[in-house]
Amino acid sequence: MTRKRVAVAGASGYAGGELLRLLLGHPDVEIGALTGASNAGQPLGALQPHLVPLADRVLEETSIETLSGHDVVFLALPHGQSGAVAAQLGDDTVVIDCGADFRLADSAAWEKFYGGQHAGTWPYGLPELPGQREVLRGATRVAVPGCYPTISSLSLAPAVAAGIVEPDVTVVAASGTSGAGKAAKPHLLGSEIMGNASAYGVGGVHRHTPEITQNLSKLTDGTVSVSFTPLLVPMSRGILATCSAKLTGGVTAEEVYDVYAKAYADEPFIHLLPQGQWPQTKSVTGSNAVHLQVTVDEDARRMIAVGAVDNLSKGTAGAAVQCMNLALGLDEGLGLTTVGIAP
Amino acid sequence: MTRKRVAVAGASGYAGGELLRLLLGHPDVEIGALTGASNAGQPLGALQPHLVPLADRVLEETSIETLSGHDVVFLALPHGQSGAVAAQLGDDTVVIDCGADFRLADSAAWEKFYGGQHAGTWPYGLPELPGQREVLRGATRVAVPGCYPTISSLSLAPAVAAGIVEPDVTVVAASGTSGAGKAAKPHLLGSEIMGNASAYGVGGVHRHTPEITQNLSKLTDGTVSVSFTPLLVPMSRGILATCSAKLTGGVTAEEVYDVYAKAYADEPFIHLLPQGQWPQTKSVTGSNAVHLQVTVDEDARRMIAVGAVDNLSKGTAGAAVQCMNLALGLDEGLGLTTVGIAP
Amino acid sequence: MTRKRVAVAGASGYAGGELLRLLLGHPDVEIGALTGASNAGQPLGALQPHLVPLADRVLEETSIETLSGHDVVFLALPHGQSGAVAAQLGDDTVVIDCGADFRLADSAAWEKFYGGQHAGTWPYGLPELPGQREVLRGATRVAVPGCYPTISSLSLAPAVAAGIVEPDVTVVAASGTSGAGKAAKPHLLGSEIMGNASAYGVGGVHRHTPEITQNLSKLTDGTVSVSFTPLLVPMSRGILATCSAKLTGGVTAEEVYDVYAKAYADEPFIHLLPQGQWPQTKSVTGSNAVHLQVTVDEDARRMIAVGAVDNLSKGTAGAAVQCMNLALGLDEGLGLTTVGIAP
Amino acid sequence: MTRKRVAVAGASGYAGGELLRLLLGHPDVEIGALTGASNAGQPLGALQPHLVPLADRVLEETSIETLSGHDVVFLALPHGQSGAVAAQLGDDTVVIDCGADFRLADSAAWEKFYGGQHAGTWPYGLPELPGQREVLRGATRVAVPGCYPTISSLSLAPAVAAGIVEPDVTVVAASGTSGAGKAAKPHLLGSEIMGNASAYGVGGVHRHTPEITQNLSKLTDGTVSVSFTPLLVPMSRGILATCSAKLTGGVTAEEVYDVYAKAYADEPFIHLLPQGQWPQTKSVTGSNAVHLQVTVDEDARRMIAVGAVDNLSKGTAGAAVQCMNLALGLDEGLGLTTVGIAP
Repeated sequence: MTRKRVAVAGASGYAGGELLRLLLGHPDVEIGALTGASNAGQPLGALQPHLVPLADRVLEETSIETLSGHDVVFLALPHGQSGAVAAQLGDDTVVIDCGADFRLADSAAWEKFYGGQHAGTWPYGLPELPGQREVLRGATRVAVPGCYPTISSLSLAPAVAAGIVEPDVTVVAASGTSGAGKAAKPHLLGSEIMGNASAYGVGGVHRHTPEITQNLSKLTDGTVSVSFTPLLVPMSRGILATCSAKLTGGVTAEEVYDVYAKAYADEPFIHLLPQGQWPQTKSVTGSNAVHLQVTVDEDARRMIAVGAVDNLSKGTAGAAVQCMNLALGLDEGLGLTTVGIAP
Repeated sequence: MTRKRVAVAGASGYAGGELLRLLLGHPDVEIGALTGASNAGQPLGALQPHLVPLADRVLEETSIETLSGHDVVFLALPHGQSGAVAAQLGDDTVVIDCGADFRLADSAAWEKFYGGQHAGTWPYGLPELPGQREVLRGATRVAVPGCYPTISSLSLAPAVAAGIVEPDVTVVAASGTSGAGKAAKPHLLGSEIMGNASAYGVGGVHRHTPEITQNLSKLTDGTVSVSFTPLLVPMSRGILATCSAKLTGGVTAEEVYDVYAKAYADEPFIHLLPQGQWPQTKSVTGSNAVHLQVTVDEDARRMIAVGAVDNLSKGTAGAAVQCMNLALGLDEGLGLTTVGIAP
Repeated sequence: MTRKRVAVAGASGYAGGELLRLLLGHPDVEIGALTGASNAGQPLGALQPHLVPLADRVLEETSIETLSGHDVVFLALPHGQSGAVAAQLGDDTVVIDCGADFRLADSAAWEKFYGGQHAGTWPYGLPELPGQREVLRGATRVAVPGCYPTISSLSLAPAVAAGIVEPDVTVVAASGTSGAGKAAKPHLLGSEIMGNASAYGVGGVHRHTPEITQNLSKLTDGTVSVSFTPLLVPMSRGILATCSAKLTGGVTAEEVYDVYAKAYADEPFIHLLPQGQWPQTKSVTGSNAVHLQVTVDEDARRMIAVGAVDNLSKGTAGAAVQCMNLALGLDEGLGLTTVGIAP
Repeated sequence: MTRKRVAVAGASGYAGGELLRLLLGHPDVEIGALTGASNAGQPLGALQPHLVPLADRVLEETSIETLSGHDVVFLALPHGQSGAVAAQLGDDTVVIDCGADFRLADSAAWEKFYGGQHAGTWPYGLPELPGQREVLRGATRVAVPGCYPTISSLSLAPAVAAGIVEPDVTVVAASGTSGAGKAAKPHLLGSEIMGNASAYGVGGVHRHTPEITQNLSKLTDGTVSVSFTPLLVPMSRGILATCSAKLTGGVTAEEVYDVYAKAYADEPFIHLLPQGQWPQTKSVTGSNAVHLQVTVDEDARRMIAVGAVDNLSKGTAGAAVQCMNLALGLDEGLGLTTVGIAP
């Protein structure tokens, strides 16, 4: 078949770099325009030195002229900028947005958490949620989920859908720093980050909270209450989400495990570990896999689910490629792997 | 005054090393016997090269002969070994146990979580809990709290005692690796730890769970249910505990903050940060301080409290020195600091 | 074509794990027996949880029965164990040894640095050295280079061969910890490694010294003197080698750069960075690429060359796969990439 | 005695923070004005949360009004700004500059490496260099050495002074990131730094090169040639310098060791490790100690000396306090320690 021609807007950032890393290994695509903002005019080798085959490619301005004429356009832009770009790209172009602009259905929630006007709602790029894969096949617009919502939703969905837990969940998610992006801020300096764990966005104010709520609430009749606390821990990549909720009945650890095993039996990228083995982020570094484990705290009567994901891969760029594959009618796993890099 | 002569049993481990670091800066003590197990006969400089003034001191065997004749004996031994040593030391010796042997009042809980026979219960070395400072003044035996129970209990105690949260709490605590000790195990290798976050002891099975339950339950009429999940994150020191519980009423973030501010107003080592500033472990590295912050998640109706502590300092050796000061009738803060080392 | 059947002896270690990671992505191989020593009988998923597709594979004993019947056998065993295994495998099996047993031509050097008896000398698996690629094509036995010799030799070879530096070089190589292996030792604990840089094997006593000397001396008439100092720095993977030598004449930085550019013009895995851009290990994480840069210190009249390599990939397992490709007559780069994982 | 009143200009940076950490533990000083540039008006607790006792102190503007009226003024300002401030402070004020402005005697070297006009030359604050302690006693102006020059000079001085090595040395120094300061730059982000080692300022162009040359050349009749390469490795603090030079004669490792042992026999902060034990940066974290070891590479006929220092403590702020003590006629070690924080 003819290779699909893809463009990446925002190629100098972490999401853009990971997209290009994956696309370089994808058999059915050819990498077209690469664009940047302040970095336009620079060679990619100076910005993403790990992408050797693209070292001499020069970043162009993010504009309709640059981005048109591609089969697929990936947008890895700051929140709020995707709408204007996407509006100029026709429906014959698959547009996959790694930003937050089109993730939420509730405009009020979008405006409360992001500010500005809500651009709209696109098919949500988490094919492992019930019914979602079908929505994504052949789609021409896809909103890639946030990294925290990806792992939080996948860690809790089977239990919430099965009604074995109360619709009132807590998530504490320890994240590497790449999720905070490549813009230089003092609190993200290596000197500050190494040897340091901290909490931020505490009390339900993190922007990913309404997205987790949206995903889990779709699985029940009502609204699922979500208490979400993100932590920053000293690693570049990876999220480890510790999720829990009160059990609704006398369900055992084995029964909970079975619920998860059945829910994800056919999912190529979800790996429920053998009972007793707990996820670690390093196992999924660079891969599109999600590692999960669940158990029951008998005394506290809570289910505890722990999930690990690479925030840049399955948490962003891997999901984007997976969605592109679905949108284009390709094998869903093309260019993706379940094999991580460790140690 | 005459300097008190102190011995450290288990001087080659992390708790022992931190004790010696603090004791070297304590104006009223003189360091006596240092003992080890397999390391006996080795100079301390080969085992703890950061303790330059003690580099030429040679470790002795841990025995009653070696440890007798001191005013204070610190035990930094593997769990289960303190009882036999302490039984041979008279009441004229202050014995401070950094292990778990004497922390729990409930023998059944001890035997369930630690195995073997329960050695007994000593005054519990967390002076910041209500009424506990008085118990420790002049004590001749002290059980130093576990690192996780220290930060979990201090993060939750004011809210539990005030009845503003349900007696049903969740704690997710991200810890550095030094809490796992200096014994070489493959999963603790630097190659495994760096770039990696993982969960362990999930589902209420970690040994520190009954200790947290004991501390919090003392503050209420009944038993507080505790869901505790420890995480291992890539740093040597520090614990960041994210604690939450449903609010019992319509309390606001300001009201919760005031409860904490009042509870800890006179505590020299507890530092409630200005509202809006969240704790980070690096701020307490090497210090005896605990940094706290609290807020309310309006949508989830939960209180979130986050605490940071250095697991080896205030979490172990600093608490031990603080308790020694109380036991000997010295100023509680001698040899201790609230100043951390950062970055 | 029929896929080649490959076995990996020592599949539970870091080199073995990296081999399997690469082989899982190789189009022309099928993974056969996986063996271990103390880990035989365990599922690979418990030992290498990042290798999801092999999670249920069980390790077998390392024996001739297990290893026979494969087209290729990779040996990732402790030093000194490869000879006995290899002796039992016929010449119709390609044997690729990731250990040190067959690297050195000088038996006296081998015995001085490794002890015991020298097993012999096999074709040396560094195809980027002059004339070496031809030796490896069709070989049935290959000795994979050590990680430090790989990067030290490639960083210095063009200058030594061209005679623009004195045959008297210094190498200071900062390495991640995975090169020290997965056997648990106290000084390799995460608690010790994080926040710490240290030197070891100082003064010419590291075992990789004679291997570097051998590689560089082949490029000149006499013996090249090598002062080699390895450092351990807090990262899992990667080596950054800083190499220098006095200039023999008035050569400029541009001229030195040209020497390197010409020497490596056709090498698919050696990436000489644009002048002024210096290597970093993260750019080669997980890749088979070597990043190089050179300059001249005008005042000190020394050439400085800096090279970066992933010690487990191109430094071990990647080189092994590259050599397998050459041995089997496949495209040299099959299953390998120049794209690293960053950040 | 009356406590000396000290001011710190540049209190929000890393050097300023470390100065305050040390001064908080100094028995004979009282902390006066704290100044900042863009951070003036902010409470120190928001900028240096580890300095709990100063949390409520508000940063003032750096001006003569703010800084006058102190016994000692520490300047921790960007290069080039100290001269103007110091010129306004009388000789009754001890001024200690942590910047580079007054370190070099050679104005041409200063202008070549720093640009702009050379402000002058002050007594150089490295009391461990021959004759230098005397210069510092009672001084009213002190230039604190750079961190790299401190460890490079101390690692090499005895050998250079004794003439046992050629006056032609190489230094490769692996540094933590705090030496690069707190200004946010993309390449210093935690995401970039963790898992990464890199070289910079290669080829004799780093600004600390002329300072090392100056220090070592004073010990000989001529000029010592210095090849200096700094590396950035993933840790917040610490420098490990690997230094080497050709031996001039048939000197043995023991003889070299003796030269160092004699040279530093009376130095309170220089700790020559027992032969065979090599320095690691973590042993000196937060301390004013320098750890050293030396040996001889018999084959390469080079002396190898390795030194470890905390770049912020003895490498900057500790040296500043040590110099203040000398300037004021206090005990040289007041407020300083040889005890590091580990692990």
